[in-house]
Amino acid sequence: MNGYFTPSYLARCAALAMILEVSGTPKPGNIDRDHDYVSTKYEDFLASAVGVYPVLEKACLEGGIGQLMLEASAESVRWQTGGNTHFGAYILLFPLIKAAAEGPVDQLRTNSINIVKETTVDDAVNFYRAFSMVEVRMKKPEDLEADDRGLDASGTGSLEELGRRGVTMFDIMQISSKNDMVAREWVDGFRRSFEAADKIQSKRKTGTMNDATVLTYLEMLAAEPDTFIAKKYDMDKAVYVQGLALDVVERRMTLKELSDRLFIEKINPGSTADLMIAGLFIALVSGMRV
Amino acid sequence: MNGYFTPSYLARCAALAMILEVSGTPKPGNIDRDHDYVSTKYEDFLASAVGVYPVLEKACLEGGIGQLMLEASAESVRWQTGGNTHFGAYILLFPLIKAAAEGPVDQLRTNSINIVKETTVDDAVNFYRAFSMVEVRMKKPEDLEADDRGLDASGTGSLEELGRRGVTMFDIMQISSKNDMVAREWVDGFRRSFEAADKIQSKRKTGTMNDATVLTYLEMLAAEPDTFIAKKYDMDKAVYVQGLALDVVERRMTLKELSDRLFIEKINPGSTADLMIAGLFIALVSGMRV
Repeated sequence: MNGYFTPSYLARCAALAMILEVSGTPKPGNIDRDHDYVSTKYEDFLASAVGVYPVLEKACLEGGIGQLMLEASAESVRWQTGGNTHFGAYILLFPLIKAAAEGPVDQLRTNSINIVKETTVDDAVNFYRAFSMVEVRMKKPEDLEADDRGLDASGTGSLEELGRRGVTMFDIMQISSKNDMVAREWVDGFRRSFEAADKIQSKRKTGTMNDATVLTYLEMLAAEPDTFIAKKYDMDKAVYVQGLALDVVERRMTLKELSDRLFIEKINPGSTADLMIAGLFIALVSGMRV
Repeated sequence: MNGYFTPSYLARCAALAMILEVSGTPKPGNIDRDHDYVSTKYEDFLASAVGVYPVLEKACLEGGIGQLMLEASAESVRWQTGGNTHFGAYILLFPLIKAAAEGPVDQLRTNSINIVKETTVDDAVNFYRAFSMVEVRMKKPEDLEADDRGLDASGTGSLEELGRRGVTMFDIMQISSKNDMVAREWVDGFRRSFEAADKIQSKRKTGTMNDATVLTYLEMLAAEPDTFIAKKYDMDKAVYVQGLALDVVERRMTLKELSDRLFIEKINPGSTADLMIAGLFIALVSGMRV
């Protein structure tokens, strides 16, 4: 923390980014103001975003990224009854928050890149602990069996192994990057997060906050297949959804038609939502107002 | 602050109360997920609720209620472009937050009552400063001309007069209580705020968070005429809306019909929304989960 942004300011930007993302409506496939899932509802996302505030603030001052993910995951479920809401988003938010606390906004990207490279074995261990706590679809066992470093999916039983092999959280993200677009951000210098931020800021200049969020989400979805869908179903399904999003962008289908179809088919592009949260955070820190 | 709740916990409960209130949908007449006003939108309320967090937290530790209202009003508009969003709510939230920071939840009401009675001339001066900053419909000039203490509506020019006459913020609320149901809470021992909290908690046991919010709002609106409507239009209009709300409670009209009608007629029961925020805060502090 060196005086560019206060921890309180950055924590509010991060909480607001999570709130604006879930509030973007209609947001095909994911929870929005009009769509709940059976066991997770819109308000669970709102409560989680507010509830984790102290961990977001702490991230500016201290704490490894793995440790912060563990604390945020635990705090989130104290405030709501819908289970895991923001695990993927934390993977992006914590390095970005730390980077924003370290220097001016024009160095945000460089600082984020350095921060993820400096993650440690401890971060990896805590990341896996957090991961097994929330049971997200971060990796399927087959992904990991194919991986010659011998990590297993749950992380349980492999924690000592991580230490022995000197595997850091950055290493885990590098291994996961092939099949996970959130992990890929760590390796790719947060390319798509900053791309989302640019789109959001540019659209906000001429449109409402909601339009900026929804249209950016749609363009992101049309640009690359969502890996959350690929892991839950398969890559064909993810590419199919990407094609539908492109149909909406090119006006062959309405936003509402896509929203209805994905909701009925229970397809949720969860990783694209995580990138959107990162993009909204960067946009807010860069001075965008709601 | 004596260890019952941390400032961070109480600030999160207060921010979440504001977020849950505005998210209750359909909420006849007021901004909700599906209804914006021309110059104020749903997202402005979300951003304001998150933006004032540090002032909510500070309230647990220090600061007179008037001073806190001034700081919260200034901070709110740094985060959104919709103008005044939560002024009325602050009048209730700050004493409740301070009371919750002081002792256990079963003493919340007694402590709140004592806290408002202990407000000072400084609080009154700062309250009027905040009031003139946000230009809310708290008092019309005619209300105040009828008042023999010689306060004027804008507060400007009367600040010295307040000091000379030893008028405290509690005195102002007492004077306003005849025509303002938010001010009346200070005099009435937060009767309706706690009533709202009981209703919300009871409805949450068997229904969704949204149902608990919307149905309680409706019952509150049906129980007493909303004084924000009375001041914007007149008491007849407020009683008319109360009657419509009763029609919905007794199933002679649907919630959606009432919502559409009030929105078209531009009638917003803003004071009932303020009471709801107080009720949601009390419910959250009492252990309700989203």
